[in-house]
Formats: sequence, C-alpha cells, structure tokens
Amino acid sequence: MTTTQNPVSWSEDDSAWCGLQVMAWADDLARHTDHPEHLSCTYLTPAHQAAAQTLMQWMREAGFDTVRQDAIGNLIARYRAADAGSVGGASSTDNTNTSNPCIVVGSHYDTVHNGGRYDGRLGILLPLAIVKRLHARGERLPVDLELVAFSEEEGVRYGGTFLGSSAYAGIFDPRQLDREDANGIPMRAAIAAAGLEVEQIAQAAADIASMQHYFEVHIEQGPVLLDRGLPVGVVSAIAGSIRRRITLTGRASHSGTTPMDMRLDAACAAAEIVLLVEQRCANIPGLVGTVGQLTVPNGSVNVIPGRCVFSLDVRADNDATRDAALADIDTGIAEILTRRGITAQQEELMRVPAVPCSPTQRAMWLDAIAATGIPAVELPSGAGHDAMMMANVVPVSMLFVRCGNGGISHNPREIVDVADVTIAASVTMEFLARLTAD
Amino acid sequence: MTTTQNPVSWSEDDSAWCGLQVMAWADDLARHTDHPEHLSCTYLTPAHQAAAQTLMQWMREAGFDTVRQDAIGNLIARYRAADAGSVGGASSTDNTNTSNPCIVVGSHYDTVHNGGRYDGRLGILLPLAIVKRLHARGERLPVDLELVAFSEEEGVRYGGTFLGSSAYAGIFDPRQLDREDANGIPMRAAIAAAGLEVEQIAQAAADIASMQHYFEVHIEQGPVLLDRGLPVGVVSAIAGSIRRRITLTGRASHSGTTPMDMRLDAACAAAEIVLLVEQRCANIPGLVGTVGQLTVPNGSVNVIPGRCVFSLDVRADNDATRDAALADIDTGIAEILTRRGITAQQEELMRVPAVPCSPTQRAMWLDAIAATGIPAVELPSGAGHDAMMMANVVPVSMLFVRCGNGGISHNPREIVDVADVTIAASVTMEFLARLTAD
Repeated sequence: MTTTQNPVSWSEDDSAWCGLQVMAWADDLARHTDHPEHLSCTYLTPAHQAAAQTLMQWMREAGFDTVRQDAIGNLIARYRAADAGSVGGASSTDNTNTSNPCIVVGSHYDTVHNGGRYDGRLGILLPLAIVKRLHARGERLPVDLELVAFSEEEGVRYGGTFLGSSAYAGIFDPRQLDREDANGIPMRAAIAAAGLEVEQIAQAAADIASMQHYFEVHIEQGPVLLDRGLPVGVVSAIAGSIRRRITLTGRASHSGTTPMDMRLDAACAAAEIVLLVEQRCANIPGLVGTVGQLTVPNGSVNVIPGRCVFSLDVRADNDATRDAALADIDTGIAEILTRRGITAQQEELMRVPAVPCSPTQRAMWLDAIAATGIPAVELPSGAGHDAMMMANVVPVSMLFVRCGNGGISHNPREIVDVADVTIAASVTMEFLARLTAD
Repeated sequence: MTTTQNPVSWSEDDSAWCGLQVMAWADDLARHTDHPEHLSCTYLTPAHQAAAQTLMQWMREAGFDTVRQDAIGNLIARYRAADAGSVGGASSTDNTNTSNPCIVVGSHYDTVHNGGRYDGRLGILLPLAIVKRLHARGERLPVDLELVAFSEEEGVRYGGTFLGSSAYAGIFDPRQLDREDANGIPMRAAIAAAGLEVEQIAQAAADIASMQHYFEVHIEQGPVLLDRGLPVGVVSAIAGSIRRRITLTGRASHSGTTPMDMRLDAACAAAEIVLLVEQRCANIPGLVGTVGQLTVPNGSVNVIPGRCVFSLDVRADNDATRDAALADIDTGIAEILTRRGITAQQEELMRVPAVPCSPTQRAMWLDAIAATGIPAVELPSGAGHDAMMMANVVPVSMLFVRCGNGGISHNPREIVDVADVTIAASVTMEFLARLTAD
C-alpha cells in the first residue's frame, strides 16, 4: 500500500457523516415515483423530472460551483479545483472554465419499475455528500471534480439503455429519438415536453479532452461481497455479454404410445444444453452462463415436447473467455442435436464486448481499500453500467459496495448498510488522494 | 400356430371387401362434426347424436338382430348365434334372449377436438363390416356377437373419460352426472336433451354373467408397428400411468452478477430431472417416462430461474415396472434437490393401474396373426382404451392396427391403410374361429 497524503483533511467522522447523509438522501429521493406504492422513476416522467430538480437543488446547496442540466437530462455539477494558493482554503468560484482538467464521477438517477433506491443513485449521492462536506469546510481538490447524474441507464421506457452517459460521452445515436414508449410517445417529444432542447443533444457531449478519469461507485447488485464479508470491492472489468434465443424442434407425439427409443424430444435436448451451459461456465472466475427462459410451448402432460424455446446469456470479464466458452457450448449443442435428431434455430439478441477497467485506477482503488484496513479484492461486474459508455472516451474504474438481502437488486428489497457507505466514503477519499497526487 | 377350422366361410376377398367398406364408412361418419372445418364429435352434441343415428342405421342394414341405444348413448347391436342346425346356414332371428352367452366387441364413436376418423371408430366399423358380410351370406357365429359403439371415451366435453364403457360395464359413477361442460350444461341435462333416460343409466349395464370375452380393435396411435413394418400387433397390456405436476423453487437472481457457485437455479435442477426420467425409462420394454410440460414462469433472459414447473408422466405395462421406475426417479430427484439446495412441491394428478390383457385371448391373437402369414408381435398400449373398463368384468384383449404418418393420432393426419384394415379383418376372423372353438 502506498501512503498518500490526502490533499484535504478527512476523518472517519467525515465518512460517517457522508454515510448518514447518503442514506437520508436516498430515502428522500425515492419519494419521487411514477407509482404510489413502489419506486419507479423512468426517463422523463414527472417523477423523474422532480427527482432531477431535487438533485440539482442538493448540488447547489452542496456548494458545487456550476450546476446545469444538459439536453438529454443529465445533471452536471462541477466543483472547481483549488487555486494554487487555496488548497485547503478558500473557494475559487471565479474559475468557470469548463475546460479545466477534470475528474468525472457519476452514475444514473433513473430506476427500473419497482426498483431499489441505491442502484445508480448511490454513485451520485456519495460524491455529492463528499463535496458538501468539503465545501462546508472550504476545502477543494487539486483538480476539478465533475459530478454527473445520468438521466437514463436502465432502458425501461424506450428500450435503449445508457441514454444519459452515451450523450455525455458524445456517442448518442440520434436514431434513438424516434423510439416510442408504451404509450406511443416518441423520445424526442418526451424530451421537448420536459423543456429540454432535442437539437442540443449532439452538443451535450462533455469536453472529452479535459477529462482525465472517470470513476463510478455502485452497489454490487450481486452476492459476492456479501458472501466474502467485505464492504467494498474493485471492479476488474464490466462483463461483455452474448444473448441468444434458441428454438429446438423435435417431434411431438403421444407420451404413452411412443417408445423411448423412437422419440425426438425437444425438452430432453434442451435439458442437456442447460446442463452443458452450467458445466462449461463453472469454476472459471468472471464467466457466467444462464438459461433464464425455458418453455415447451403449449406443452401437455401426455405429449412429448416437439418444441422447446430457451434463452442463453453468456458473460465474462473478457471477451476471449466468453467466446471460448460459447464456442465450446456451440460444439456441444451441435453434438447434442445430431445425436438426438433435433434441429435448432438460433437468434442472437445481443453482443456487447467486455469493458476492462483502467489498470492504473484499479491499482489505486486496491491501494485505497488496503489503506482503510480492509482486504482488497477485485471482482467483475456482470451487469452493465454507465462506465461502459465512458470507457469509450476516458479511462474508467468502479468501486462496488456490498448489497444486503442476498445481493438482490432491481427490487424493493435492495439495501445497502450505512456502515458500508461510510467505508465507501473513506475509500473514495483515499482513491481521490491517489488519483490527484503529483 | 394352431390350425383351426373357421365356423364360417371366409376368404381374402371378404377381408378386402371389409377393408374398403370400413374406409368408406369412416369417411362417411366423419361428416358428422361439431366444427365445419375439422372433425370434432364430442359427447351428445348434435353431430354426435347424428353419428349415432347413422351407426344404428348401418347396424340395422348390416343385419344385426337387435339394435338399441342405452341411457348413456352406447349403441348396442347383437348378431345372434347360429342355431345348432343352422351353422353356416339360415339366420335365427327368432332368438331374442339377450342372456345368451356372448362375445362383446366394440370401441368408441366420440372423437377429440380436431381428431382423426379412425381412433375408436375402426373398432366399431370393422366388426360391423364383418357382420354385414356374414349376414349377406346368411352365416352366423357359434355364439352371440354383441357389438357396442361406446358413446364416450375421450373425456373432452366433461373431463371424465370412459362414460360409455363404464356404464356398459356397470361401474359408472353417478356423481359424474353433475359435471358441467364449458358452457355450464350439466351432463344429466345433456343426456335428457338427447332423449335418453338419465335414471336408466344404472340399468344400462350389460348382462355381465353372459359375457364370455371382450375384444377391441384399435389403431395403435403410435409408431411401433410402422417402425417394425407390421400391419397389426397384439396388445400385451394397457399401461397404467402416474402423472404429477412438480414445482421446483430455487432463488431468482441476476444472471450477470451471481457467480455459478452461488446459484440456486431451478431450471438446472429440472434439466437434471428431465434427463433422469429419460435415462431411467430407457431400454425397458413397456416403460415410458415423459416431461411434457416444462416452463420457467415469467422467465427473463437475465434472471436465474427461481422457479421451474414441469409435468411427469410415467407408464408401464405392469405396475411393478412403473412403480420401480418411479421409486428410482424419486430417489434421484431427492439427491438432485439436496445437492442443489432446491425445494420441490409435487402434486399427483393421476394414478391408474395397468390392465393386463387375457393370456388366453393374447395367445389366440398371436396364433391368428401367424395363421395369416404375418410375424406376430405383442406391444403394450400406452394409451387408455374402453377395454380398461371392460376388464373389470370380463377377460379382454386388443388388436392394434398400424397408424401411418409416423403413428400420429388425435390429429387430422391420423391415417390407416386399407390393406392393413383388410389384414385386420382376416386376423379378426381367425381370432373369432379360435375364440368360438371348443
């Protein structure tokens, strides 16, 4: 572990204050919901717009020097660097040049339907609390810190994900504007109705040249840290995934009158494939394979399945691992189908490459965790995050915070512990010290 | 093979005539349908009642001495035995004592929705043709032959199966009369509306003491004879079946963020069970095991299955074989569930014992087939038949006739070949010669 002098004064009390503040804000922000009985805050609904107003108010109150909303609905707040003479001292609000070198931190404030209050929002509220704490004491970092609350990541309303971070990173696909929601409202109409300038989305891109780093704090959304008894972990890479829909066709026939050796049972073939996927993906860190959908359409108790439809989702923290697994699975499927006389139709639904996190930042995170006296581990992120979009333009990293309740997310039972948020604040300050050193 | 003198004169030409007559009648009878575009003839619909009238007319025209409809809708036609002095000669229509010793032959005239024209009906039309042919020449058998066209076997309209044969066998459960069809019409009302006497159903039972044998000719409804290149086969036993619905519960979680070794995947457990059933039932003649329904309720591509629901159908031509297989399957399921941390809820939907066919009649059928120069084989019936009800009161046997089109049944593509029906006529006559010999 490197001993790094923090450019600002920071104590465990400060982290504890941040932990409490984040929990209170997360509860408060969850009041803005599309649905009276659970938390749903999808892109540009009234609840989503109200959440944005609340966040911008909190950003201003925290002491950010500039707070603005871009054309896609992202909320962008900048906390200026200390002047040479003002480190640990007075603010420098006169510096409004957005092209100053900056570190970007952020995550998204939309939610899934019936979701949790920490997914995405933790990564906005934690830096917000840190800046509020720093500002209260008149302290600043050596470089500008830009906090971005991305307007849309989950893809609930319009199917397309990462609307906010793709626009901020300058890679927004304008064809998405023609997508319609379930009520037939095109995205461009929803954006205009929210008072935003659709035409300005292309100009919403941040000044990439001035970005030095992007990092994102996020709940793990899985059980790994919980299982290992660790409050935080460093993301090694964001897994790439391939999704397919596979339809097997055998021959439907009477379950009583067709001997076992004369059957073409599509469900038996699917069962072999389900277990093949499980076996091939076992015991390889960072690799997972899942058959989440599985059905015999119109199946009857007394009819041998003539068809079986299932999904396949294979992810790994690097594409070589994923593709090797998929190649073996394909070989196995071909053998199963040939042996059983079953035919298959496969449709690829998604293919996203893995996004490795910056080795430099990962090392700093590991060092920062060790500095707080906690075992430092890395784990892949199996879910997608805004950092995937940001990785197109700047080195990225992520800190995962432990989820309670078995690691459940996208669910009202999603929970984080205030003690873990407190530790995440300490680790983030240690990380920032390393990131802004020299 | 035993050489048996046929009590009546019969030639291959007679069998060929029967084959053609059966095919023509089957086509004709299929005109009575509940649905204009396919064959559906369910219990006591107008089409079903019209089919009954047609069959009774054909019975009368064929020369049966008595033709009547009982209170459940069965059509019962008796062709009297030859008097001592009239074997091969004049008719004996003056003998109307229904308590004469008799051989009963029959099958059902109802169909499933969108069914085939030979299922059940072949077993009515073939004896009908034989009697018509005998009567045309003034020939009679040494004993009375009672042909029964059972009104209901498939269970389509009221769920309960074997309405006709259970009433004829005297084991009709009167509680069934309160069942309602999809339109809320109770069975007793449907029976009354058809002009039948509900109160007489208990009296519909045949004179069991006078029955010597029951046999049934039926399409195989499977691919075994087709696969072996044989026109007919003898049924060894009608399989007993056990049906269950099984619900597995694991833990739903995110497919990307849950490592393989931390999953409780209900579909993987189900897949193991599907293959266990297939393996345990393989290579044992007469035993079949099927998972026909299989689904992950509300499955998502990116969610590990927390539940999986499937059906289990295990049948064998004897209950010991079936129960041994099921015991091994249960042991295997318990091991799978324990190893995987999955829980199961099992519901038994059906348990029907196997019905062995009469060894005496089976031997006569095998002998009869061999007498026609065809390899004589036995096979179990995996599907249920009216013979199961008749077995409660009289020794039973069945002759299966090859199905074309891969053995498909309960489907408009159900087909039999006229050449096979011709052979079935010859074999039936050889069988009757042996059955009535003494």
